Amino acid sequence: MKEIFPTIPSIPHEGPDSKNPLAFKYFDPNKNVGDKSMGEHLRFSMAYWHTMNGGGTDPFGTVTAVRPWDGVRDPMELARIKMRGLFELTTKLQIPFFCFHDRDVAPAGDTLRECNRNLDEIVSYVKELYQDYPTRLLWGTAQLFWFPKFMHGAGTSPYPDVFAYAAGQVKKAMEVTKELDGENYVFWGGREGYETLLNTDMGIELDNLGYFLRMAVDYAKEIGFTGQLLIEPKPKEPTKHQYDADAGSIWGFLQEYNLEKAFKLNIETNHATLAGHTMQHELQFARTKGILGSVDANQGDELLGWDTDQFPTNIYGTTAIMYQILLNGGLHTGGLNFDAKVRRPSFTVEDLAAAHIAGMDAFARGLEAAQAMKKERALSAFVDERYAGYNDGIGRKIRDKQTSFADLEAYVIDKSDIQVGSGKQEYLESVVNTYI
Amino acid sequence: MKEIFPTIPSIPHEGPDSKNPLAFKYFDPNKNVGDKSMGEHLRFSMAYWHTMNGGGTDPFGTVTAVRPWDGVRDPMELARIKMRGLFELTTKLQIPFFCFHDRDVAPAGDTLRECNRNLDEIVSYVKELYQDYPTRLLWGTAQLFWFPKFMHGAGTSPYPDVFAYAAGQVKKAMEVTKELDGENYVFWGGREGYETLLNTDMGIELDNLGYFLRMAVDYAKEIGFTGQLLIEPKPKEPTKHQYDADAGSIWGFLQEYNLEKAFKLNIETNHATLAGHTMQHELQFARTKGILGSVDANQGDELLGWDTDQFPTNIYGTTAIMYQILLNGGLHTGGLNFDAKVRRPSFTVEDLAAAHIAGMDAFARGLEAAQAMKKERALSAFVDERYAGYNDGIGRKIRDKQTSFADLEAYVIDKSDIQVGSGKQEYLESVVNTYI
Amino acid sequence: MKEIFPTIPSIPHEGPDSKNPLAFKYFDPNKNVGDKSMGEHLRFSMAYWHTMNGGGTDPFGTVTAVRPWDGVRDPMELARIKMRGLFELTTKLQIPFFCFHDRDVAPAGDTLRECNRNLDEIVSYVKELYQDYPTRLLWGTAQLFWFPKFMHGAGTSPYPDVFAYAAGQVKKAMEVTKELDGENYVFWGGREGYETLLNTDMGIELDNLGYFLRMAVDYAKEIGFTGQLLIEPKPKEPTKHQYDADAGSIWGFLQEYNLEKAFKLNIETNHATLAGHTMQHELQFARTKGILGSVDANQGDELLGWDTDQFPTNIYGTTAIMYQILLNGGLHTGGLNFDAKVRRPSFTVEDLAAAHIAGMDAFARGLEAAQAMKKERALSAFVDERYAGYNDGIGRKIRDKQTSFADLEAYVIDKSDIQVGSGKQEYLESVVNTYI
Amino acid sequence: MKEIFPTIPSIPHEGPDSKNPLAFKYFDPNKNVGDKSMGEHLRFSMAYWHTMNGGGTDPFGTVTAVRPWDGVRDPMELARIKMRGLFELTTKLQIPFFCFHDRDVAPAGDTLRECNRNLDEIVSYVKELYQDYPTRLLWGTAQLFWFPKFMHGAGTSPYPDVFAYAAGQVKKAMEVTKELDGENYVFWGGREGYETLLNTDMGIELDNLGYFLRMAVDYAKEIGFTGQLLIEPKPKEPTKHQYDADAGSIWGFLQEYNLEKAFKLNIETNHATLAGHTMQHELQFARTKGILGSVDANQGDELLGWDTDQFPTNIYGTTAIMYQILLNGGLHTGGLNFDAKVRRPSFTVEDLAAAHIAGMDAFARGLEAAQAMKKERALSAFVDERYAGYNDGIGRKIRDKQTSFADLEAYVIDKSDIQVGSGKQEYLESVVNTYI
Repeated sequence: MKEIFPTIPSIPHEGPDSKNPLAFKYFDPNKNVGDKSMGEHLRFSMAYWHTMNGGGTDPFGTVTAVRPWDGVRDPMELARIKMRGLFELTTKLQIPFFCFHDRDVAPAGDTLRECNRNLDEIVSYVKELYQDYPTRLLWGTAQLFWFPKFMHGAGTSPYPDVFAYAAGQVKKAMEVTKELDGENYVFWGGREGYETLLNTDMGIELDNLGYFLRMAVDYAKEIGFTGQLLIEPKPKEPTKHQYDADAGSIWGFLQEYNLEKAFKLNIETNHATLAGHTMQHELQFARTKGILGSVDANQGDELLGWDTDQFPTNIYGTTAIMYQILLNGGLHTGGLNFDAKVRRPSFTVEDLAAAHIAGMDAFARGLEAAQAMKKERALSAFVDERYAGYNDGIGRKIRDKQTSFADLEAYVIDKSDIQVGSGKQEYLESVVNTYI
Repeated sequence: MKEIFPTIPSIPHEGPDSKNPLAFKYFDPNKNVGDKSMGEHLRFSMAYWHTMNGGGTDPFGTVTAVRPWDGVRDPMELARIKMRGLFELTTKLQIPFFCFHDRDVAPAGDTLRECNRNLDEIVSYVKELYQDYPTRLLWGTAQLFWFPKFMHGAGTSPYPDVFAYAAGQVKKAMEVTKELDGENYVFWGGREGYETLLNTDMGIELDNLGYFLRMAVDYAKEIGFTGQLLIEPKPKEPTKHQYDADAGSIWGFLQEYNLEKAFKLNIETNHATLAGHTMQHELQFARTKGILGSVDANQGDELLGWDTDQFPTNIYGTTAIMYQILLNGGLHTGGLNFDAKVRRPSFTVEDLAAAHIAGMDAFARGLEAAQAMKKERALSAFVDERYAGYNDGIGRKIRDKQTSFADLEAYVIDKSDIQVGSGKQEYLESVVNTYI
Repeated sequence: MKEIFPTIPSIPHEGPDSKNPLAFKYFDPNKNVGDKSMGEHLRFSMAYWHTMNGGGTDPFGTVTAVRPWDGVRDPMELARIKMRGLFELTTKLQIPFFCFHDRDVAPAGDTLRECNRNLDEIVSYVKELYQDYPTRLLWGTAQLFWFPKFMHGAGTSPYPDVFAYAAGQVKKAMEVTKELDGENYVFWGGREGYETLLNTDMGIELDNLGYFLRMAVDYAKEIGFTGQLLIEPKPKEPTKHQYDADAGSIWGFLQEYNLEKAFKLNIETNHATLAGHTMQHELQFARTKGILGSVDANQGDELLGWDTDQFPTNIYGTTAIMYQILLNGGLHTGGLNFDAKVRRPSFTVEDLAAAHIAGMDAFARGLEAAQAMKKERALSAFVDERYAGYNDGIGRKIRDKQTSFADLEAYVIDKSDIQVGSGKQEYLESVVNTYI
Repeated sequence: MKEIFPTIPSIPHEGPDSKNPLAFKYFDPNKNVGDKSMGEHLRFSMAYWHTMNGGGTDPFGTVTAVRPWDGVRDPMELARIKMRGLFELTTKLQIPFFCFHDRDVAPAGDTLRECNRNLDEIVSYVKELYQDYPTRLLWGTAQLFWFPKFMHGAGTSPYPDVFAYAAGQVKKAMEVTKELDGENYVFWGGREGYETLLNTDMGIELDNLGYFLRMAVDYAKEIGFTGQLLIEPKPKEPTKHQYDADAGSIWGFLQEYNLEKAFKLNIETNHATLAGHTMQHELQFARTKGILGSVDANQGDELLGWDTDQFPTNIYGTTAIMYQILLNGGLHTGGLNFDAKVRRPSFTVEDLAAAHIAGMDAFARGLEAAQAMKKERALSAFVDERYAGYNDGIGRKIRDKQTSFADLEAYVIDKSDIQVGSGKQEYLESVVNTYI
């Protein structure tokens, strides 16, 4: 079988002194980090949409990407070539997983039935590819934002036909995710929000969205899909406001609709920062609430106001992510999906490989730094000491909910020496630097 | 009794052609708007902290304000003069309410007991002033952010003594709010968050905050305080992150700690925009969830990244707020508290009056515009029509939760003509303009 | 000749009580405002690219727009139909001008020669349309950002062939602008900047851009193009950074390359706010420096971080713009170009008309408010008084540059009573409200 | 002489494995980096205002800092203790320079004459301290923003008396800077801007500011001050808009007022990001224009909208800064001034030391990374190759300004194969990582 990316070799690990652009400097899947190998820790995934379909477009520019399949015109042939390309590229890069939206991988048809037929063909082809390549499905999802019918939302559309269509489409996407042994299923509500409140009934929309997800839970059970259901927060873009804005607001939504046991979150760095939060914040919040499921591994430009979906090369970022994941005991069925696209001027196939290598190396370093910090309790010793007052005395009573305003008032009413310690932020930042 | 603000007259209504800076152009409390008078609709409140204590300082500049009490040095005398000043000024401006933090109105002491003693004196004085002036208390609150002990938080402090102190302080603040017939009690968690996650245990902090508020609910019941408890969202500033970031995240917090029946929200325009939301969004979300309690009436500068707390003079803003309030059936015990400060270069007493007049006139116009839009169904007719598909057929089944993914798939699987209508945003904006 | 937009009538003026979506409520070109008619003041222009080519796409969604030419496949036939559509629509809307990029109006060819040939055909057709319609060209420009060759810039490309191509393209665009009696020619450097400094030589790029514009000035002279040359500031998007970031930075660039007499600015509201400035700031700065040339009339969403290019419906915004334009003595050859697009869900032809009507009505109100403020000196009387100290005494010496640090020190060294007045911001905002 | 900070030892270099919070892990002034020692490269400076005067206040909280001089009440005694504290602390930290505002170091008096008298006393004391300590003055400046007289600006005040006072104050500040052998003098226009355009005459204000700086240049010459004059950009905060917003806008201002030979820039990271630029952008722009003078070394939080002035601990940031400085051939008389403050909860004296250590270690690593990148041409080889087309052929003619639109058109008119190369951003980011 002819290679699709003949200029991309299987990427070797050559160590930090290598000047080979197509080699890993830090990532080495067999290296032990704590009680697992680097490969076990770092469940990387390639995003089909960016890497296979992305063309380098932006609102002011057309396709720049040069790809092996540029001359292919038949949609189903094109879909097969790109899918095989993904399996080849992930394998060469030692990326164990991929993720896709239904409409990324197979062309749409006039009706849902036709869409499903196209999708089934490609799913069969993926099962063939499973024979030849080690790549597997981290998560599937339904694409509910591209076509005009979804312009006002899918599960939150003011039009019941659209709601119904979205339900039918998710049903099928869940089925194929199960068929491909996908470990998770993701909901990203890119149009589940509004452009203007002047025309919006937020109450109906939120209730409908809650019911939509409830039916999804029921259907997963019905077909025996045991993967994790995930919601992906994003506050804005494409729509002015999306209801799944951030981890905190989804936490409210899930509880209101009794979905908090059924869903976890798929958290993305660039979405976190668009919501005004650090990625660490979103991860730590989700971890604290028991809903940290998976990670979309990218980075944004905090001086730009849109989702730049850059490859994650900042080692502070990867360290912070891996630290939260280690504290979470890993991501379980989740992984690190490179929801990232090469810059418009990085238009070559080599850039695709180099970008994933850059991200994987950055995560390798982040993992090692995080593991060392965790093992040496570089931060946690200070944190534990800081809250130690809650281990006994009045602090213990507070933690045990065995006190009252009156008790506490009596305890402090004549105290004139309430002491607190330094937060030592600058020192802690310098400690982190010793691990970078 | 000598006037404190002799240069400020009782502010008359003179109509839109008046050039008198100390007259209302639009606000006329006796004018009927719908089924209530303008005065009944617009439950304005003056913020003690900004108007009596604000000096025009900023992080790069000292006090500029020139005030009648500038020479007074005795703290208790100063506290009395300013309190009487507030009653005089609200009365002249026809503002029926005021709001305060405990430490705004009376000097702190070395211990909580001493603080309480000072506070009691002033509370007694307020009760005397109640004899002479019509101004009443919209809400009270405890100031849990100014002093060093609260540098790491109050209910979320890593130090139990601080938690205890905060509990004692809130206990007292609730008592005096009740004593003064306050209609609400507010919690603003300006330090309930973190500066850096490197030293923070978010799980303990959130649990403690939940318990703190639970004890507050219990204590309100114990003392028979029947006013509404309110939480005020703000995402950041002074701390890097505050847990009560926005309406959506508080909604999650309240449900988790079973507080969603006990609390409503006090929503501030400038806090909404710092969280990346419009004020309308926050109001509509809270209204939809039944937790819209009160409003901090100000405006920010969306091109600046901090809480500028400007007086609300933008009529689009006041119209949007009043429209949401009308749809909510009013604010009930809540009101429109001018949590706003004059700009640093607006240092005169006349600026204080002019700023409140500017805000009140802007709300008068906003109320009239909103009432007309509501009455004429300028927006709601379109909204109702837009969601009409949910009144019967498949839409009705969705709303009644009487369907499933399989049903919905069957309904759409061969449909090739899913239609949606235009959102007509530009037209709706021009409709709003006809009411401005 | 068959109408292209048969559902759009000639838009009548019906006054503020009209409920007709396709009527002007405020815009009346024959109404006198000051010493000119509203039509003379408001030199509106339609943007070919948004109104004829815009499809409602965004980075997450395909075309939603439904247009009369949707079935037409031949590119030149399509180009003619859309151009005629523009003339028809502008005429029905009483918009006297249009603006275009070369590649908007005629399809590209394989070489510049072929592009020019296509362009020439359409230009001839425009000249025919000039016989039948009153619409004329406000400005032309070259589109130097869409195609891959411009991915690294045009006049700032690291590749001389691209620089040369851009020069050839601008040459032709200037020629056709002259041929069509265009009153201005615009440069918008959407790719004149960088994605990352890691690969960028800023010195070469800026020098080349300076030389590019110098050659443009020379060429305009050579062909006798007497229209105004304009640069349009924008700080970012599509590229990470654009050199023509805002009025202030262009002012530096123009002076360095001796271009400050040859160019004025075409200032856009949404670009101003992306740069962190108000539109008024950019206009006032440009006016003060004598380089206010034209206006791209739109508005952004200050809570979103990208160029939303919304129709300008905010009356505060249109009032502020018209106030600056009146103080500038008008825009001379410049105009108010609706560089605005209907929202993705406003997909009908009626939305196109309603959006322009909304913008025109908002500008009509802004003009009337601004004219009244100017005539009554509502703001300027205060401003003049505020700086009156510079009319004589030490102030006069400062303005006349007839003093020194030593003189001024002597003047103040023992002064203990330096007085300043209130800035009265809140009052001035309430004054503006009486004109809205 | 009794130590002021007895708990702070002379900070030793102990290497990266040290766990001693009060030791350098990376900074070693004697280590050679390229052709200079680390100490020669890193001309660190302590900011008097933050480190000696900063109390941890913010707009919602009072002083938290605990300092050795907390009980001292006499203003002149306090001023002396703090100044000696600065010399002791800089010496212990091996920081060779300090910076101050006039009013930081000596109390204000009722008149400028009294202020000057106080200042003279402290300046004499500094000269005594020069005998005992190695610390010297990097730059002085006048504080023109704290007191009410400056509420509307200093050189841009609408009130000539304020302009005169500011001139007198700068005159004195320049004199004492010279007296103390200061190597530079800085202008930061924190109030040189406006709060609202409604009351502002931008033309007068900018002209006055230009004249103010012209007089400063003249006065420096008159007294023989040969240090570098510097302007510090900042876009906003405390005022809504400051005229010296960023490097690009100052470049325009300097040229307009013929000051571009007399001034360079003092660039601060957090000011750059508030202006929407990266620090690298501002440095590279200034370097390209020959006006890179000095650096205020701190970092901001890009998710917060105000000047957080954090200590610079991000190694990507310090590497980028040092890379630009190396390309500039060093900063000459300039230095790296820690215009940074410890966080409010870092209230101890040990935090002050730890914060400076954190910043110095981060810069040591940044310097070594930058030097290695420069020496190995890790980035510059790619950049040179990218622009190599301008070395000959048509590119050379462009660089030599020996062409025209017509020539260039002829060159490209039939070219159908305009080629450009990949920008390789992701790869270049991974290259930088190998140096971090």
